[in-house]
Amino acid sequence: MAKKKMSYKDAGVDINAAVNISSRIGTIAKSTFNKRVLSHVGNFGGLFSLIKLKEKNPILVASVDGVGTKVQLARTMNIFNTIGQDLVNHCVDDIAVQGARPLFFLDYIALSTFNAHCITGVIDGIAKACKQNGCVLIGGETAEMPGVYRRGEYDLAGSIVGIVDKNALITGTAIAPGDCLIGLASSGLHTNGYSLALKAVKRGKLNLKRKYTGLRKTLGMELLKPHISYLSFIQKAGRYVHGFAHITGGGFDYNISRILPNGTAAMIDIQAWKTPRIFTLLQEAGIIAQREMYSVFNMGIGMIAIAPPRQAARIIQTAHATGHRAWEIGTIINASARANVRKNGLTTGMVHLKGLAHD
Amino acid sequence: MAKKKMSYKDAGVDINAAVNISSRIGTIAKSTFNKRVLSHVGNFGGLFSLIKLKEKNPILVASVDGVGTKVQLARTMNIFNTIGQDLVNHCVDDIAVQGARPLFFLDYIALSTFNAHCITGVIDGIAKACKQNGCVLIGGETAEMPGVYRRGEYDLAGSIVGIVDKNALITGTAIAPGDCLIGLASSGLHTNGYSLALKAVKRGKLNLKRKYTGLRKTLGMELLKPHISYLSFIQKAGRYVHGFAHITGGGFDYNISRILPNGTAAMIDIQAWKTPRIFTLLQEAGIIAQREMYSVFNMGIGMIAIAPPRQAARIIQTAHATGHRAWEIGTIINASARANVRKNGLTTGMVHLKGLAHD
Repeated sequence: MAKKKMSYKDAGVDINAAVNISSRIGTIAKSTFNKRVLSHVGNFGGLFSLIKLKEKNPILVASVDGVGTKVQLARTMNIFNTIGQDLVNHCVDDIAVQGARPLFFLDYIALSTFNAHCITGVIDGIAKACKQNGCVLIGGETAEMPGVYRRGEYDLAGSIVGIVDKNALITGTAIAPGDCLIGLASSGLHTNGYSLALKAVKRGKLNLKRKYTGLRKTLGMELLKPHISYLSFIQKAGRYVHGFAHITGGGFDYNISRILPNGTAAMIDIQAWKTPRIFTLLQEAGIIAQREMYSVFNMGIGMIAIAPPRQAARIIQTAHATGHRAWEIGTIINASARANVRKNGLTTGMVHLKGLAHD
Repeated sequence: MAKKKMSYKDAGVDINAAVNISSRIGTIAKSTFNKRVLSHVGNFGGLFSLIKLKEKNPILVASVDGVGTKVQLARTMNIFNTIGQDLVNHCVDDIAVQGARPLFFLDYIALSTFNAHCITGVIDGIAKACKQNGCVLIGGETAEMPGVYRRGEYDLAGSIVGIVDKNALITGTAIAPGDCLIGLASSGLHTNGYSLALKAVKRGKLNLKRKYTGLRKTLGMELLKPHISYLSFIQKAGRYVHGFAHITGGGFDYNISRILPNGTAAMIDIQAWKTPRIFTLLQEAGIIAQREMYSVFNMGIGMIAIAPPRQAARIIQTAHATGHRAWEIGTIINASARANVRKNGLTTGMVHLKGLAHD
């Protein structure tokens, strides 16, 4: 008896499902298109015209990111559009801090098995955030990878390309001792620290469906809140600012220190803003040291602008005008000044958190 | 007794390992930089200058892709640099077919747990292929995602941005009945069909370490051969060609039909080239229908150029001159001509494979 013929579908890959979903994705992607998009869905690559740019000395700014294990939370909640927004807004912020405006976005979704609800949910969220940020979804890839992903699991990655005139590049090199740090509120964890957060939820036996005191929504919905795009704030405040730090993976330490020029350090008063309840709840549930909290989470501050003190009021006003809460949270100090070294043990690039519990 | 404090590391994420690997990746990435790269590793986004471009009417061409379950084969073989090359070459081909030259590349690597051997292997391969294609590795993201990926598993995605002058765009709209199809040899499966291939290996109890008759290397090494970049061929042959089809996921049917203008179809003589042994070996081992083979695998043809017949000899010569084997493998026919419809049941966009076994 002849053995049964094996097909790609038997190997866990359904090309027809892939083609059907591609067509639905194409329709959603098209809704983001502007007159600079020359490609048709189905082209091997997406085409974006740079003809007659307003930038005289154009510099492309590119970044790639994922949303980490927030994908697992979205799966648990069975809500997928918000992580699409997370992905785009995270990428937008990463290039906006250098002064760029976004041009286009590309997404990658890989899954253990095709799940149309998940894929179209994610793409809806991506398209929504793209439109909000004036960015087009010019390409994407959806891959079915049984064996690599755990059953029902999936992952997302996105790449963004933006543009800035060379003269408008924000590099952070002008940051100097005496500058102030202005922090803008995050919506929650944004896209970082979810592996630790989910472990803390488990350790503290927290319930994602419960609305804990001090939270406005259930814990699950609080944790799922999308990453904020600070694009319009940055575009308006950019000219008064020496540098921006997007507080993502690695928390305060890593993301502030990476833009500090040699010889400077940052002193942050963590009492300058109220730590949102979501962070203290996770800290208590997980029994996590306060120091660790600030090196993993954004602790309520999603974006930091560093500027001369005389610009502080104007920057805070711009934050308010673009829909953000903001506070003056610290200053840049001379890391080589002897008094600072003696008093705080400061070194170049260090982020000193004033008010931190020694636990 | 106080409970032990939990850290990010306890949650399966090692930020120090991430920072250490980032620095090693940074060094490798820098080796690909050219004078258009303005960013320093550690910037939030990568900066690429477009000042004084040679293109008068510049169009950016962007694409994103993964390498599918070839990542699993690489893990089994414990060789990771070749899939880095796969990732870049696949993306390069996807934009080259539209006439673009690559500018820069961004990578995303996610893993169940950090594995320096895997990450640096992949990045070495990416950097090598970037240099070969005149492309810079301008950014990347490495994510540790326990819980999402199966133990020891990982995934890769890459995005590429290239550029082409509007007048040099290759769109396929000029493809007309009478045009010939010239196929260029692939190195093997390239980056598609690995889920089916690995199932076939299992079903046929093939041994990855064995050198089967008709293969030059062991089965494992044959399967691991990197995707070929056809960039230099396309750049030299582009002006004589109406369209290119990069034979990737979906095999012949999907990738040829996507560039065929309305009213045309493709007739391919599958006896025009010798199907490499790797494909027949997998077909026999997996007991796979011949029809299915052509809609999943490239069957030995990685790139197809469609051009007027008078250009055929020149194109084949250009293929040879750029290091590729090439054959005339078919013709474009009028899909609406009654004789064709009656004889072959042809419809617009159809890819008819002449010589296919009816199994």
